[in-house]
Amino acid sequence: MISFSVNTGERNRMIDITEMIDSRLGSLENTSGFVFIFVPHTTCALTVNENYDPDVSADIIEFLQKKIPEKGGYRHREGNSDAHIKAALIGTTLLLPYDENKLSLGRWQGVFLCEFDGPRKRTIYLGQIS
Amino acid sequence: MISFSVNTGERNRMIDITEMIDSRLGSLENTSGFVFIFVPHTTCALTVNENYDPDVSADIIEFLQKKIPEKGGYRHREGNSDAHIKAALIGTTLLLPYDENKLSLGRWQGVFLCEFDGPRKRTIYLGQIS
Amino acid sequence: MISFSVNTGERNRMIDITEMIDSRLGSLENTSGFVFIFVPHTTCALTVNENYDPDVSADIIEFLQKKIPEKGGYRHREGNSDAHIKAALIGTTLLLPYDENKLSLGRWQGVFLCEFDGPRKRTIYLGQIS
Repeated sequence: MISFSVNTGERNRMIDITEMIDSRLGSLENTSGFVFIFVPHTTCALTVNENYDPDVSADIIEFLQKKIPEKGGYRHREGNSDAHIKAALIGTTLLLPYDENKLSLGRWQGVFLCEFDGPRKRTIYLGQIS
Repeated sequence: MISFSVNTGERNRMIDITEMIDSRLGSLENTSGFVFIFVPHTTCALTVNENYDPDVSADIIEFLQKKIPEKGGYRHREGNSDAHIKAALIGTTLLLPYDENKLSLGRWQGVFLCEFDGPRKRTIYLGQIS
Repeated sequence: MISFSVNTGERNRMIDITEMIDSRLGSLENTSGFVFIFVPHTTCALTVNENYDPDVSADIIEFLQKKIPEKGGYRHREGNSDAHIKAALIGTTLLLPYDENKLSLGRWQGVFLCEFDGPRKRTIYLGQIS
């Protein structure tokens, strides 16, 4: 598997990583197939959603912040249980098709790193499947 | 990858597509293995849940409608941010095992297309893995 | 695919199954690759999150119980619609990398079976991909 890093600037933010992934697909063994995308973290996540209008990801992240507040009478002393809950709901892995070193996504789709406990330096792994 | 279309009749609705998938598995290269299922859309999703009692999917969709309202002070001008949020929470891809051209699911499980911004014509892609 | 069972002791509980999986990876064909993890049930789920501090999974499960109550005016007569909703949000399958018969996870990550309608005996399937 290959990896790259992303520095996230805010506590809660969806960052479009579609081009960062596309530019690294050439390092995989085959030029077409399926790519497994993975974050080895427990307070951020990966999702596919619209990356054309940035208001969409802003609405998603704002909704999650409102419904899963940072202060909520949690037990975990680190103070970031909201981030763990959000990561469990969104998920930390993706499997996506690619063709000729480009993700085969729908017209409005992009891949987002969802930061829920930033700012941090996050690692993203890419691995080829079949 | 092969694809097929589903016309969804309502704004919010879970549609059982298990048989639509089973009937197309014969078009994949192998008769057994894993099938990747994917919607190239950002306001619908895919999930596995009970397809025996239709009240289950009705309860899921009603819960999501209640907790993620259509009008919620969102920024995105298209007026369907609720659908994007629901799609991010449920997910737009699935990987499932199949055997002899039939999904290998649990007794009560079926695959659902979750429409959150219908009615629309939705495309579903199927791709074989290993 | 190989399988194993887990007896869950409570109605809502996240159970760390990382070691149960690791100890069975040696039964797969290859010593490295990707493992598909699957529950054939509709009222429990699988997720990856922190397994170092047990307060994290306790906070996640408590949050879900509070936001998705057992009694909520649901239609499904079996009385466990909350469990179906939680399973739809968390997901019932995972795909994860492993190396030399051990899951390749982040330092704080573990795999959890999320029981939402226990206590029950649950089956977990493991299948190798590429």
